[in-house]
Amino acid sequence: MSKKIAAFGEVMMRLQVPGFELLSQANTLNYSFSGTGVNVVSTMTRYGYEGYLVSALPDNPLGQAAESYLGKLGISKNYLVRFGQYLGHYFLESGVGVRPSRVTYSNRLESSFNTAPEAIYDFEKIAKETDVVHFCGITLAMNDVARNNIRRFATAVKDNDGIVVFDCNYRPTLWGENSYKKAKPYYEELLFLADIVLMNEKDAIHVLGMQTEKTDRHQQLKDLIPKVAKKYSIPVIAGTHRTIHEDHTHSLQGYLYKEDQFSFSDTLTFTVHDRIGAGDAFTSGIIYGELEGMSARKTVDFATTAGMLKHTTVGDTPVLSDVEIFESMETKGTDIKR
Amino acid sequence: MSKKIAAFGEVMMRLQVPGFELLSQANTLNYSFSGTGVNVVSTMTRYGYEGYLVSALPDNPLGQAAESYLGKLGISKNYLVRFGQYLGHYFLESGVGVRPSRVTYSNRLESSFNTAPEAIYDFEKIAKETDVVHFCGITLAMNDVARNNIRRFATAVKDNDGIVVFDCNYRPTLWGENSYKKAKPYYEELLFLADIVLMNEKDAIHVLGMQTEKTDRHQQLKDLIPKVAKKYSIPVIAGTHRTIHEDHTHSLQGYLYKEDQFSFSDTLTFTVHDRIGAGDAFTSGIIYGELEGMSARKTVDFATTAGMLKHTTVGDTPVLSDVEIFESMETKGTDIKR
Amino acid sequence: MSKKIAAFGEVMMRLQVPGFELLSQANTLNYSFSGTGVNVVSTMTRYGYEGYLVSALPDNPLGQAAESYLGKLGISKNYLVRFGQYLGHYFLESGVGVRPSRVTYSNRLESSFNTAPEAIYDFEKIAKETDVVHFCGITLAMNDVARNNIRRFATAVKDNDGIVVFDCNYRPTLWGENSYKKAKPYYEELLFLADIVLMNEKDAIHVLGMQTEKTDRHQQLKDLIPKVAKKYSIPVIAGTHRTIHEDHTHSLQGYLYKEDQFSFSDTLTFTVHDRIGAGDAFTSGIIYGELEGMSARKTVDFATTAGMLKHTTVGDTPVLSDVEIFESMETKGTDIKR
Amino acid sequence: MSKKIAAFGEVMMRLQVPGFELLSQANTLNYSFSGTGVNVVSTMTRYGYEGYLVSALPDNPLGQAAESYLGKLGISKNYLVRFGQYLGHYFLESGVGVRPSRVTYSNRLESSFNTAPEAIYDFEKIAKETDVVHFCGITLAMNDVARNNIRRFATAVKDNDGIVVFDCNYRPTLWGENSYKKAKPYYEELLFLADIVLMNEKDAIHVLGMQTEKTDRHQQLKDLIPKVAKKYSIPVIAGTHRTIHEDHTHSLQGYLYKEDQFSFSDTLTFTVHDRIGAGDAFTSGIIYGELEGMSARKTVDFATTAGMLKHTTVGDTPVLSDVEIFESMETKGTDIKR
Amino acid sequence: MSKKIAAFGEVMMRLQVPGFELLSQANTLNYSFSGTGVNVVSTMTRYGYEGYLVSALPDNPLGQAAESYLGKLGISKNYLVRFGQYLGHYFLESGVGVRPSRVTYSNRLESSFNTAPEAIYDFEKIAKETDVVHFCGITLAMNDVARNNIRRFATAVKDNDGIVVFDCNYRPTLWGENSYKKAKPYYEELLFLADIVLMNEKDAIHVLGMQTEKTDRHQQLKDLIPKVAKKYSIPVIAGTHRTIHEDHTHSLQGYLYKEDQFSFSDTLTFTVHDRIGAGDAFTSGIIYGELEGMSARKTVDFATTAGMLKHTTVGDTPVLSDVEIFESMETKGTDIKR
Amino acid sequence: MSKKIAAFGEVMMRLQVPGFELLSQANTLNYSFSGTGVNVVSTMTRYGYEGYLVSALPDNPLGQAAESYLGKLGISKNYLVRFGQYLGHYFLESGVGVRPSRVTYSNRLESSFNTAPEAIYDFEKIAKETDVVHFCGITLAMNDVARNNIRRFATAVKDNDGIVVFDCNYRPTLWGENSYKKAKPYYEELLFLADIVLMNEKDAIHVLGMQTEKTDRHQQLKDLIPKVAKKYSIPVIAGTHRTIHEDHTHSLQGYLYKEDQFSFSDTLTFTVHDRIGAGDAFTSGIIYGELEGMSARKTVDFATTAGMLKHTTVGDTPVLSDVEIFESMETKGTDIKR
Repeated sequence: MSKKIAAFGEVMMRLQVPGFELLSQANTLNYSFSGTGVNVVSTMTRYGYEGYLVSALPDNPLGQAAESYLGKLGISKNYLVRFGQYLGHYFLESGVGVRPSRVTYSNRLESSFNTAPEAIYDFEKIAKETDVVHFCGITLAMNDVARNNIRRFATAVKDNDGIVVFDCNYRPTLWGENSYKKAKPYYEELLFLADIVLMNEKDAIHVLGMQTEKTDRHQQLKDLIPKVAKKYSIPVIAGTHRTIHEDHTHSLQGYLYKEDQFSFSDTLTFTVHDRIGAGDAFTSGIIYGELEGMSARKTVDFATTAGMLKHTTVGDTPVLSDVEIFESMETKGTDIKR
Repeated sequence: MSKKIAAFGEVMMRLQVPGFELLSQANTLNYSFSGTGVNVVSTMTRYGYEGYLVSALPDNPLGQAAESYLGKLGISKNYLVRFGQYLGHYFLESGVGVRPSRVTYSNRLESSFNTAPEAIYDFEKIAKETDVVHFCGITLAMNDVARNNIRRFATAVKDNDGIVVFDCNYRPTLWGENSYKKAKPYYEELLFLADIVLMNEKDAIHVLGMQTEKTDRHQQLKDLIPKVAKKYSIPVIAGTHRTIHEDHTHSLQGYLYKEDQFSFSDTLTFTVHDRIGAGDAFTSGIIYGELEGMSARKTVDFATTAGMLKHTTVGDTPVLSDVEIFESMETKGTDIKR
Repeated sequence: MSKKIAAFGEVMMRLQVPGFELLSQANTLNYSFSGTGVNVVSTMTRYGYEGYLVSALPDNPLGQAAESYLGKLGISKNYLVRFGQYLGHYFLESGVGVRPSRVTYSNRLESSFNTAPEAIYDFEKIAKETDVVHFCGITLAMNDVARNNIRRFATAVKDNDGIVVFDCNYRPTLWGENSYKKAKPYYEELLFLADIVLMNEKDAIHVLGMQTEKTDRHQQLKDLIPKVAKKYSIPVIAGTHRTIHEDHTHSLQGYLYKEDQFSFSDTLTFTVHDRIGAGDAFTSGIIYGELEGMSARKTVDFATTAGMLKHTTVGDTPVLSDVEIFESMETKGTDIKR
Repeated sequence: MSKKIAAFGEVMMRLQVPGFELLSQANTLNYSFSGTGVNVVSTMTRYGYEGYLVSALPDNPLGQAAESYLGKLGISKNYLVRFGQYLGHYFLESGVGVRPSRVTYSNRLESSFNTAPEAIYDFEKIAKETDVVHFCGITLAMNDVARNNIRRFATAVKDNDGIVVFDCNYRPTLWGENSYKKAKPYYEELLFLADIVLMNEKDAIHVLGMQTEKTDRHQQLKDLIPKVAKKYSIPVIAGTHRTIHEDHTHSLQGYLYKEDQFSFSDTLTFTVHDRIGAGDAFTSGIIYGELEGMSARKTVDFATTAGMLKHTTVGDTPVLSDVEIFESMETKGTDIKR
Repeated sequence: MSKKIAAFGEVMMRLQVPGFELLSQANTLNYSFSGTGVNVVSTMTRYGYEGYLVSALPDNPLGQAAESYLGKLGISKNYLVRFGQYLGHYFLESGVGVRPSRVTYSNRLESSFNTAPEAIYDFEKIAKETDVVHFCGITLAMNDVARNNIRRFATAVKDNDGIVVFDCNYRPTLWGENSYKKAKPYYEELLFLADIVLMNEKDAIHVLGMQTEKTDRHQQLKDLIPKVAKKYSIPVIAGTHRTIHEDHTHSLQGYLYKEDQFSFSDTLTFTVHDRIGAGDAFTSGIIYGELEGMSARKTVDFATTAGMLKHTTVGDTPVLSDVEIFESMETKGTDIKR
Repeated sequence: MSKKIAAFGEVMMRLQVPGFELLSQANTLNYSFSGTGVNVVSTMTRYGYEGYLVSALPDNPLGQAAESYLGKLGISKNYLVRFGQYLGHYFLESGVGVRPSRVTYSNRLESSFNTAPEAIYDFEKIAKETDVVHFCGITLAMNDVARNNIRRFATAVKDNDGIVVFDCNYRPTLWGENSYKKAKPYYEELLFLADIVLMNEKDAIHVLGMQTEKTDRHQQLKDLIPKVAKKYSIPVIAGTHRTIHEDHTHSLQGYLYKEDQFSFSDTLTFTVHDRIGAGDAFTSGIIYGELEGMSARKTVDFATTAGMLKHTTVGDTPVLSDVEIFESMETKGTDIKR
């Protein structure tokens, strides 16, 4: 029977201006529903797992629309609850060439997810019924209600021998003044509970306040990640380095640190169609490799290829299957498939 | 030189599902920007006046989009200020046949308009420079910041011999528990300041707590409106009665009470394409008739026809000119115009 | 072998605002290519005839687009010539309910068709190769170049024993001041050449200056059409009376006058989706009935039903086949066809 | 815990021309996935049940698209299998006014569902795990593979004390020559197994070859349905009578025959936006009433209202919840909901 | 008078997901009608020839839509017959960057074209009336009905001194097991009849089973094509080599073998917008050069440029004229044309 | 108080085929309203100035649509007049890769702007109320009415100590035969009045008939521009050199000649999304730098960056603010902005 993976996270409505117009030029928007947890869990269903989202949706047509959309993404609605009236959302204006894409968030602090009380979820039961649960640093940045929920849930997962995945996903703008200082204790709490952590050297330096004498980021990574793994007893840490080139192509190199060893993927260079969600594609690849017992090198190659391919599909949520990712790892720059 | 009319009110983003799908079925939205004040002022520019909006917009791409849209509607940006990050918005799913349209509001209490402090507006200057200012009861329902602003601004207008238009626009769901009781003192304050008031007998009964022995709404109207006019010293009161028929056609009859006399329009019956904003079309018609010195009967006929025609155009904001409304008053059920 | 019908007429580009927005609200247009001659000839190809258009198109991408579109409508390009740079076009804003549709013409006097010299067409050859040629009164209104062409072509058709169809299609706004007086001699010239004429009593009264003591339009028709037939020696005259009802449904009744006898269709009442081109659908029905040797009553019933059905299809050009029209004549208000 | 309802049926791709153009005019299609079983099961999930589809989908991007769409409709993918390469589909051109809608089926005999061998489904297991299973007469018309599967599955459901719902849904064009004679034995087999049957007097007369001396369809129904119930030992039979009016409105009256008694709904008259799937909405209403233990009259009222409301929503699959249907039963012709 | 070119081939419906979404993400499709023969013949009409398609279309709205579309492409309907109910079609999901485009065929074996009996076409008459006829290897892969038709028609063309063009267009997946062995005899039959053949060294090696000691494909081509020309007495053979680069640009080099001599075009490198139909653009260029009596070098340059430009236009069917192709051969990388 | 800038120029309707289809393939158009003056003035409003257009619009729905669109672009309608019936427009088919974009103009000589008599504008009043007025060489090419108006207006501006900006914008196709000779006197007249001129060495050589012994265009520029400045007493001259590369990227280098000195920007290389209006973006940057008193180097860098960024936004009219342009000058190739 296929393993069960759940995520605890907010569902966001993505409102995208089609084409390359600005919000002040256009008059239509494409909408979809996503979120770090949504993306990871949906991707895992493409890889053959059962996917669940633990979240609160508003009890109105928006909540119904979000639930339908999660169904389309292959995610079970069993752990969704209805509470409150608002869904967080953001507007996306796509850039092209030298002009970057632009994201404008609308108010999410009052969203159903960020105001739903702990009692509304049966964390204990969910923890018993699932094998892996994914948490995201963005939730930590919201408010005490959200932070309290995340702590309780992660603890319940550990108590039931589940696997805790934690994606640091640090966003300074969400924490306000003295952001690093505010964030550190919450991050540390989660790191101590986590089995698989997504991060890189910047999180170690800024959020965790660690120091290094290295100046090159690759060297910083090799210096600091082992220290993080040791300090917080984290079995698996993984992440990527992204480079943006003058011709607007991007490069990604993934790393996986495990059993005192680094594995690095090839550096993949590619053109970008839709950049959002690439990190979640990488995360899903790491989880997949770990759950399937793939070698570290194969895992990080798979995850980095999944990350690259996400840039070629529309929407925040990865949509390709493991078969397609393996296929892409073998053939490069192929012709039309008929 | 043409007269200047301003409105003090929130700009809302309207996010409409195209066609007749539900939010849970579709994946695109049409958007526009509107609001009671926006609608009234834009309509007045179609009638040859200079239109201004006194409002706060977020300092981000959404604010820029709203400002551009107001320009498209013919509204001057001179009294717009930038403050905060959020714009109120609502989702609209269009009904058809026996299925009614459905509006879902998103959080608007934290919007730029509803959190902008009084000091950000130069009410005194604006009151000096404009001839008429329009206020709306929806603003009263928001919070103390908004209520404070509206009181100060209306007072400034009166102090400068401007005309205060007040549309009661009472929405029970916005006031929470004990809504009528909460609302009454704020409404009374505005009624005492107003020169032209939009309301009908329901407002008198529910919000102002007046009583009548009549049971027919037409009789209630004739009983109560003169008392309201007298109690609050209101020179002009106007409003409509809407009837919805079994075949989904609607009927509108407008009334205008002025100098101790009622004038009633014909009862117009028509099919409905887009119902939102019809009240604002009626309001604009009343203001236009008053400013142009039209007879009471002609004013209420014009306003009711404008209200009817609004049901045939897309979007909250009326888009037809006075010429087109007069034309429709004369010819009914006409063929294509080439 | 199927008979050949040609039309001499202008190709117009129709630029339609989708839905019910005004030009000042929308930002997209649907476009197609049509014209009275285009509509009639395309319809005849649906009825099994070979259809040709004799016209001039600009020698640029617009001309190419028009030619492709005519091909889509089943019209042969054999008699199309390339000349000049401009294509006439018009903008269409669709009304709904009490608001009528609105057509705005752009400059067509400088169009390729209206400036193409006679020498560019080989009227003699075309007249030899075709059985029926359709002419339209709108062309008469354009300028001397167009009027000269139409006279020469119609004469050539008669000289070659072809059938001349003439649709009066009188549009007062196109003729400027003293319109009727200006138009009359050109109309008379064509009427003398025509075998089948589309008109009603209004054309007789206004354009031809005939008088009647009747006041009811049905009586006027019965009084005047026989006189027209006699004066200009016209074998077949046909036309319709349209009534527009308060609920925006329309009624059509067709008539056919032939061999000193009137035949009238039933009065058909129906809802309207796209009104333009209904007259051309009627015309095609008359031509079809005449060419197929149907009875007068069946011909006028077919033509009026074709006219009614045109109101249910999109675009100026009728798109239903004779089979579908006969089907509709037999079954009314039918359910979905699977 | 909520009850489980499954359907055994084909997933069809619906390819609809947007608006009112014909296939020969347009160049885009809207697509969705539906089917009688899909519609019924999805509706039941809106009423709080767990819904499953037992079907075969092609193992290619079309199959993936269908599966995603079923997820969007709230249907579990647990009983879906992948087999073959083709998905049945149909093209829909929407009529308007006097012009009926038109459905063109593409080849479905070679579809995955209609060629999937019995062994691919674990009918025994599914029958054990579900409470109700829905079957449709359209499947009977396909081929021996499909007929064999339906018989085995229905038998397994009965063996496991499940409820068998059978919608006769007789389509003469699918059975070819001597259609009634061919169909009868297969229909009888299912009727003997069924607990709830959807049919009316036409099925009794044509498919089952029963005779009646009544000429009025209402009388025929009252004469024949009790005989059917008796002959095949069917506890519950239900269905509708539809009338199409001259103004293109439709009327529906539902009936429910149970425990030797007829219950009839009011005759509801309404305008039609999208007619397909109305029968499935009615079916779902009957199942819902039966499972919830509602009175016969309330059940048939609910089902008929659900059928009526289906005509106001887009797509084959009903999308309104039980709450919305009850709401509509109480209020008629209501204004916009905010 | 312009020469007449016909093609014998299937009309396919192309159903394309707009933008870069997958079928499982989107809900609209763009459709058009194409096919190798359609593409070649339509292109020839852009070059001034008369184009005909010899094919069978279903007798339903799909057939009507296909016929209209062919008219839009400039193709005469004179040799089209109506037979059967189904039209072959395929779904296209566009790739971007490292993700390739994906084509999913629906069942075409039961299509009108692939089941239409020989007797339905008057091959003898068509062969008499046309100068050139194009055949395609895809038709050979279908079934005996199709293979029989193609053989008869090609023989009739030769008997009437027409030019037979044969595009090998070998697709292994269409032939099933032992594909090369099955295909060879049918290919050989056509090669013996053909005057102009489109192929390259792969066809010689795989389909015709020829051997070469060369390993480089350019050398293989130079070794094998002269042998093919000799063995099957083919006056003109032409084809291309395509290279796909890491940055997703493609290169094309065309060759033409005639009178014992190779001519090669420059290797053109370019970005790809829509790759399908590029081979047909090349074929049309070769036919055009041959018919116009252009030099071999000019012919292959023209054809390769036409192939390159096809990658920049939307749809399977080339849409540029000879004028535009010559223009592109002279100027490279030009600015906007006004 | 912000400075006022006006432009005297035609409003054109841009009718763009969406995506990359040709006019002969598509059936929808996106429309907007632009023009050199529109673009410059709208851009200046993004930089904080008050923008006005002095122009004539038709008195019909097209004129109303244009006025609304100008409002959306931030342009005041105070100096717009209504006259005539026609609006100039052009069709745009977007190229991709090696295929260039294509512009097809429709008849503009009869447009409202090009036929509006001088008396309709109050040039004297406008000249008094504005600080800067922009003129464009395209207007000079139209007809005597337009040329007369431009001369009177420019003279009035100089008489009132305003700044005259003149963009040579020479288009040979608009002048017909002997174009340079015809144009020269009109250009010279404007050059003598201008304070800021946009041109490069080609204008000097072709329009003004100046000679140089240099062969390299950079050297020609350095040789000729000082002579032009001297001969016509022009304080500021600016312009760009554009290079189009094989991979379809473009390069721009701007220059500014002032006080006997050249300043050159870096050569910027970039991919192109929408090329039209880039020159107007550059012009606006020069005006902005001059009005703000920026250094010559900073001005030309700002203007060239503004020109480059225009290629990344949709539509003729630049839409980015000064803040965004300065941001782009500092950071290159940045990631998504959240």
